[in-house]
Amino acid sequence: MNTLFDKLHEECGVFGIYDKTCDNVATSAYLALYALQHRGQENCGIAVNDDGVIKCHKDAGLVPDVFNREVLEKLGQGSIAVGHCRYSTTGNSSSINAQPLVVRHCKGHMALAHNGNLVNAAQLREQLEMNGAIFHTTNDTEVISYIITRERLMSSSIEEAVEKAMHTIKGAYSLIVMSPKKLIAARDPNGFRPLCLGRTESGGYVFASESCALDSIGAEFVRDIEPGEIVVVEDNEMRSIRTHCGGKSSFCVFEFVYFARPDSIIEGASVHDARREAGRILYQENPVEADVVIGVPDSGLDAALGYSQESGIPYGVGFVKNRYVGRTFIQPSQGQRENSVRIKLNVISETVKGKRVVLVDDSIVRGTTCARIVKLIRDAGAKEVHFAISAPPFKNPCFFGTDIDSRDKLIACRMSVDEIAKSIGVESLTYLSVDGVKRIAKDAKCGFCVGCFTGEYPIAVPDVVKKDKFERKLSEKAK
Amino acid sequence: MNTLFDKLHEECGVFGIYDKTCDNVATSAYLALYALQHRGQENCGIAVNDDGVIKCHKDAGLVPDVFNREVLEKLGQGSIAVGHCRYSTTGNSSSINAQPLVVRHCKGHMALAHNGNLVNAAQLREQLEMNGAIFHTTNDTEVISYIITRERLMSSSIEEAVEKAMHTIKGAYSLIVMSPKKLIAARDPNGFRPLCLGRTESGGYVFASESCALDSIGAEFVRDIEPGEIVVVEDNEMRSIRTHCGGKSSFCVFEFVYFARPDSIIEGASVHDARREAGRILYQENPVEADVVIGVPDSGLDAALGYSQESGIPYGVGFVKNRYVGRTFIQPSQGQRENSVRIKLNVISETVKGKRVVLVDDSIVRGTTCARIVKLIRDAGAKEVHFAISAPPFKNPCFFGTDIDSRDKLIACRMSVDEIAKSIGVESLTYLSVDGVKRIAKDAKCGFCVGCFTGEYPIAVPDVVKKDKFERKLSEKAK
Amino acid sequence: MNTLFDKLHEECGVFGIYDKTCDNVATSAYLALYALQHRGQENCGIAVNDDGVIKCHKDAGLVPDVFNREVLEKLGQGSIAVGHCRYSTTGNSSSINAQPLVVRHCKGHMALAHNGNLVNAAQLREQLEMNGAIFHTTNDTEVISYIITRERLMSSSIEEAVEKAMHTIKGAYSLIVMSPKKLIAARDPNGFRPLCLGRTESGGYVFASESCALDSIGAEFVRDIEPGEIVVVEDNEMRSIRTHCGGKSSFCVFEFVYFARPDSIIEGASVHDARREAGRILYQENPVEADVVIGVPDSGLDAALGYSQESGIPYGVGFVKNRYVGRTFIQPSQGQRENSVRIKLNVISETVKGKRVVLVDDSIVRGTTCARIVKLIRDAGAKEVHFAISAPPFKNPCFFGTDIDSRDKLIACRMSVDEIAKSIGVESLTYLSVDGVKRIAKDAKCGFCVGCFTGEYPIAVPDVVKKDKFERKLSEKAK
Amino acid sequence: MNTLFDKLHEECGVFGIYDKTCDNVATSAYLALYALQHRGQENCGIAVNDDGVIKCHKDAGLVPDVFNREVLEKLGQGSIAVGHCRYSTTGNSSSINAQPLVVRHCKGHMALAHNGNLVNAAQLREQLEMNGAIFHTTNDTEVISYIITRERLMSSSIEEAVEKAMHTIKGAYSLIVMSPKKLIAARDPNGFRPLCLGRTESGGYVFASESCALDSIGAEFVRDIEPGEIVVVEDNEMRSIRTHCGGKSSFCVFEFVYFARPDSIIEGASVHDARREAGRILYQENPVEADVVIGVPDSGLDAALGYSQESGIPYGVGFVKNRYVGRTFIQPSQGQRENSVRIKLNVISETVKGKRVVLVDDSIVRGTTCARIVKLIRDAGAKEVHFAISAPPFKNPCFFGTDIDSRDKLIACRMSVDEIAKSIGVESLTYLSVDGVKRIAKDAKCGFCVGCFTGEYPIAVPDVVKKDKFERKLSEKAK
Repeated sequence: MNTLFDKLHEECGVFGIYDKTCDNVATSAYLALYALQHRGQENCGIAVNDDGVIKCHKDAGLVPDVFNREVLEKLGQGSIAVGHCRYSTTGNSSSINAQPLVVRHCKGHMALAHNGNLVNAAQLREQLEMNGAIFHTTNDTEVISYIITRERLMSSSIEEAVEKAMHTIKGAYSLIVMSPKKLIAARDPNGFRPLCLGRTESGGYVFASESCALDSIGAEFVRDIEPGEIVVVEDNEMRSIRTHCGGKSSFCVFEFVYFARPDSIIEGASVHDARREAGRILYQENPVEADVVIGVPDSGLDAALGYSQESGIPYGVGFVKNRYVGRTFIQPSQGQRENSVRIKLNVISETVKGKRVVLVDDSIVRGTTCARIVKLIRDAGAKEVHFAISAPPFKNPCFFGTDIDSRDKLIACRMSVDEIAKSIGVESLTYLSVDGVKRIAKDAKCGFCVGCFTGEYPIAVPDVVKKDKFERKLSEKAK
Repeated sequence: MNTLFDKLHEECGVFGIYDKTCDNVATSAYLALYALQHRGQENCGIAVNDDGVIKCHKDAGLVPDVFNREVLEKLGQGSIAVGHCRYSTTGNSSSINAQPLVVRHCKGHMALAHNGNLVNAAQLREQLEMNGAIFHTTNDTEVISYIITRERLMSSSIEEAVEKAMHTIKGAYSLIVMSPKKLIAARDPNGFRPLCLGRTESGGYVFASESCALDSIGAEFVRDIEPGEIVVVEDNEMRSIRTHCGGKSSFCVFEFVYFARPDSIIEGASVHDARREAGRILYQENPVEADVVIGVPDSGLDAALGYSQESGIPYGVGFVKNRYVGRTFIQPSQGQRENSVRIKLNVISETVKGKRVVLVDDSIVRGTTCARIVKLIRDAGAKEVHFAISAPPFKNPCFFGTDIDSRDKLIACRMSVDEIAKSIGVESLTYLSVDGVKRIAKDAKCGFCVGCFTGEYPIAVPDVVKKDKFERKLSEKAK
Repeated sequence: MNTLFDKLHEECGVFGIYDKTCDNVATSAYLALYALQHRGQENCGIAVNDDGVIKCHKDAGLVPDVFNREVLEKLGQGSIAVGHCRYSTTGNSSSINAQPLVVRHCKGHMALAHNGNLVNAAQLREQLEMNGAIFHTTNDTEVISYIITRERLMSSSIEEAVEKAMHTIKGAYSLIVMSPKKLIAARDPNGFRPLCLGRTESGGYVFASESCALDSIGAEFVRDIEPGEIVVVEDNEMRSIRTHCGGKSSFCVFEFVYFARPDSIIEGASVHDARREAGRILYQENPVEADVVIGVPDSGLDAALGYSQESGIPYGVGFVKNRYVGRTFIQPSQGQRENSVRIKLNVISETVKGKRVVLVDDSIVRGTTCARIVKLIRDAGAKEVHFAISAPPFKNPCFFGTDIDSRDKLIACRMSVDEIAKSIGVESLTYLSVDGVKRIAKDAKCGFCVGCFTGEYPIAVPDVVKKDKFERKLSEKAK
Repeated sequence: MNTLFDKLHEECGVFGIYDKTCDNVATSAYLALYALQHRGQENCGIAVNDDGVIKCHKDAGLVPDVFNREVLEKLGQGSIAVGHCRYSTTGNSSSINAQPLVVRHCKGHMALAHNGNLVNAAQLREQLEMNGAIFHTTNDTEVISYIITRERLMSSSIEEAVEKAMHTIKGAYSLIVMSPKKLIAARDPNGFRPLCLGRTESGGYVFASESCALDSIGAEFVRDIEPGEIVVVEDNEMRSIRTHCGGKSSFCVFEFVYFARPDSIIEGASVHDARREAGRILYQENPVEADVVIGVPDSGLDAALGYSQESGIPYGVGFVKNRYVGRTFIQPSQGQRENSVRIKLNVISETVKGKRVVLVDDSIVRGTTCARIVKLIRDAGAKEVHFAISAPPFKNPCFFGTDIDSRDKLIACRMSVDEIAKSIGVESLTYLSVDGVKRIAKDAKCGFCVGCFTGEYPIAVPDVVKKDKFERKLSEKAK
């Protein structure tokens, strides 16, 4: 839905349910994916395990486009299901990359749903291909499914195979695996991406990227999956394998800043509170004199409220967002394009007219949309515009599951803060400090990955992968 | 998009453009209807006048569903267009009632777009039928088009016919008429529904239900059409006919409370400011002691902010609304339905836990959704819930263009305020007074219709119409 | 489905059913329209009368595109229905012209389905407009509905109004009218277009353009409606009004040649037999020496068989028609277009190689497709190609319900038979004589209209209408 | 389109093109798939090789449903393409099994399109799984792609890998493989299914299941691929590898009887001629006295013509087939179902009334449709009905690429010829002999597989596969 805006994208949301008393796990997965839709809007899918037979439906589109009553009914009456929604960075023919991935190996069928990015995927892929593997997708998930399959041949159980595979795969992964009889969740040793555990009213087990998905099906939040932990549900019982636990916790701090839904509780901290706290620290670090604080909808509103609370500057509603503008929006002609941002976002003039305005948002990516939004406020009569960003500037790519990508696109890589302020036309521009952003989730019990701000990553990233991030090309080997 | 909620509906949004220098009036109408979509989500249409030939496309669905690039191109290259979006109360086969209505009469084609309701439509329809008229739709618009057509036979111009027709039709109408060479806007003498005038950058003229539609195409707001005024655009010139002006201004106050978009300026007053003012007066009239003020998204947020500003009680964000839940939402099964409101609206627990909460919304219709929302807050740990409504209770039907309808459905007709409070489970329930609601739009230069609150209507409503509102039935005359 | 071909079009098929014991008249109408689909492929509709309330669904598209299970169910459980399918000659926005037309007049609702063309529609329309009528469509059907409505005001019954209206409307009409309690069928005094009566197994009454529609619902064919006859079904009883009967019967002979389905029985004659007879007479009139007779699928096959039977020249299968090529066919690029006819129609080389071939079809319209088909046969090795047409050449427009239209498009208006033969590249070209075509339906009890061949029409056609057929333009009256 | 009928299904059509001068191979593939649509109507796909990058689009549906202008344009401007259409026997989620299959292995991407069935697929699949392979589909094509990939690791070229793979895979396969630079066609040593070679006007090479696909793009038929032959196109040159040639030719005779299009030339013989010859031999073997010979459309028409030619009994047109009835046909209610066959197929009464009728069709599968068709003819007044089948009775399953499957469904497995005749209500029932069916394609240079008639198969079929054909179940291995 953010097609007119210039926002970053999370790459996935995952969900799993094991509930022997529920006759409708497909609908539960559907509701949960609705709640996780913000984590991926390009394609989605659900796989249901009906007594060992796995039925799967997945396609390009939002949850309400891909699923309807009839499709859900065809998925059958199983008691285990996995769901996935995805933002695809690869472009054409994206439905082939939709998940869950359902494969058959020597021990039966397996469905996988994965959020994250491996740093050694290319290397593993090459090794597998040298041994005769074939790949249908460009997903890391297919690499993971091969590694698990290989280990499965010499393991006595699927969870043993997952455990062994975790010695091989490196990077970020919140993974859900469904076998004919089990549901398994695993999180990488650094815990880059979120993954939590809940229980349904009837005593079933659910895993989800965020707690808001548990709320949507009336399940109770139990706890986060620990970094490096494997949780196995089988025969209505849950057990934990902690072989890989104890590494350096490095949760993606941008989940708190932007990706996660504000009503989710992650690593013990409220996302909404973290955003308000970001606004508070933002003011503490860079106090500004102004008449009103407004946020850019929807992601800047919470931080704006915190900013107002800390500063005492009144909170105002600066914009109306048109909630009907979808992805099929027809681009207006040249003459009409100037006003295109107003179709999606219009200023409430009374709020800013004649005032010194603090405008809060969570990030600046390329800078073009910001400039237009600032112009809207000025045209509506604002005296001054002070732009406050509730995170540090992006200067480095992310290798762990988001599309913070090419240095060329990131305005903070090309310009100083003063230059950016000038280019978007504001009286002042302030960012949250790296130290500040680490403090926003006050109650969180985890460490943070701030690699996109600092360039220092919690685990080694192969040089070839770093290089590839900038020069991604599909040059086929011939013959 | 409010399918899970229990809200009232405006019945229409209208738009007209006359711009000789614009080669793309269809796209302008499309953008304007996007901005007016909140006024009607069931069907929509655009008619373009290409040198006297009128092409029209209209269908059931939202603007992005009904229109695409190809459809807009087929509408051609004219310089006059009218657009309409509509909420239909009649049910099946609604696309036959879509507007604009395009008819051919003795002097050529004519397209009409209408917002409002006539109180003497049934009476006029009967007279017309006795003279051989046939009706394709159940719209008042078709009645109006007949009346104008009859007058046109004995008038020297279409505007003269419109002027004469205004002696005959009674009730609420903001009307746009397109003839082969002219664009005409007319507003009923009481000015029940909004209608404003703007100018495009290239000097063209536009009419729209709300000023937000002007913003969306970069047009400048000029002024409201006066109650009883007719505005004619012809040969790039605009002129006004004020024969019917000077009546008792009776603008629908609920446009300020709920129907209009907060970024619109109507009758000289900001809608957003009016809502905040409603919150302020609400507190003044009924002060409450509490720890946090939250609004029900999206319509209760502005009043909640005003309430907070007046009371000094901190403003909080109490809910996250799932912006992906659309009309195709699949109803969950019995066991899952309990939580269905959470799919659309989830509580941010941190905001309400352990607190005395003031919950602000603009209205209570049947009360069922309210009760669920209150339960959400209580389940999240709120100590007290005080429900404050930024309008008086609905006790009477509306005859002027909204679906405030049957007394049976309106909870305030069946219960006292105390009983309602008890039924939805709140510590206190307060409504804005009728006197208060008349003061919310401080800068407005108009009078107000508050008939739905008081039962006193600005113009006479025939008894048969009142009766029909409760016992609407299509009993066919036989033979 | 004839988009790649150059064929003439019938303009409508109509259907009506009155069956008190049937709970599913909508499905009956659906099945019947399937059988009548060849008479009109652009839009279709069904109106059901459920105890006086008429529900209607109609749209652009083929029957299977417009109707599905859900739509049929929404039409309800009535016992009277009318259906219509239509080929539209007007182009854009055709769905507004879809039928049945459902209107409300002083005595209740009325649904009309009409096949044919009035010759005085423009004149009637003007008179009506001068009295204040407005028109939503460009259909003659709307004119008819006005005339009936006017008469209804001074008549004691709907059938009396229909009877009086028949004094006013001139031209071709096979008309079905549904009132709250009655189903009425009427055929113009010349009987230009077909209309027959049948009875369902449960004793209900049905009307249809062709008997094949009766077969599709298991109804028994009773008889044709007579030219000028009105048949009224009411209270499970049928009665006939013959006020207008006894005129000069002038059935469209091209129904037998091409429009009607070969399994239909019309005016007492088998359509299939008439086509074989056309082939027989064609050979009798113009004997040719050849090795094989082939028909152009599907319409030339029956005549080819008759030709073979009369001549003793073996019948062969010369072509395979691709039955999957539909209207959404993507036009190939320039280089590929040469072969485009082969995508729809491919030669069976073995049938024609080294042979003298008689190729039979029912008509030549513009000649371009013929030339391509002839080339296919030559490329496959035919020694000689003799083209035999089972009807006389079109030299005049039709004013009675088909699109035999502009003289410019008709090759026979521009060229002699020899010139045509040369232009399409055949050794000989022979047409059936006008006298011959009148004899093809041996058992038919009717007279024939052969105006498109001779220019002599059974009833007077106003000069202005003739003129308009060539210069159709929508020039709007201004102001 | 045969959803109302009870017909057998071919499982696939394949197409490949290599044309360096063509800028639009995707459209060529689209046109060719249209011509091959009769070989598979459930899903289809096209993969285009644009300078080493393979883009693929495939989905459930007919060619016109799956492809449109936009989709074809997205496939890009390559010069090599493969296409596939498919009838799926597996049911749900069939789009996952759509072809071409595009996979990446160690040497780059590869696209495969396959028609046929391996008899050792299950065995190979198990071996591969024991070595760590994972499967996404249930297609034999994926097994073949693995085998080729394994061989590719130790081969100097893709064609060498295909050649080696042919030592491993057993059964029926007409295979097209596209590598980054080559297009390869291969046919199993028995030549079960057809595959031919053609050249485009610009000198490119094309492979197709049937020659009718060559005609549709204006390509010239060159020759059939030999059983066991591999043809490689690279650098605009074609070369043949004949290592596997010289086996026992066993072409599926039912391709001539029913599957192939009558305008195709296969193994040197015209399919249309073979069908007429089948009719001739059918009469020779079982002469009947009668007044008219009619065929069941469309597949019985050619044999009926041959029967008429041999017997001297006049050929008649007995049925009209409704060409608009598609797969979305809504089943009528119980009362209406009796006549359901008439919606698709109606009798021309004049042809059969009072006559002794020979009814010709190519096969009887379950017998239910036959009985209805016979009843139609009797109801229309036929004196006698003699049913003649232009092939021997099916008594055994097919393992080589068709759905002649379970013995339970085949009426000839349960009843004697006399019993069948009685059950469908005919005076006589005659089948073509096995000896006769082998002689229908007079000019064919190949041997034939008649296993479905005799139970004797040209190559060994593992017992487990035979068994599985009757008891196909997906019993998952646990854990």
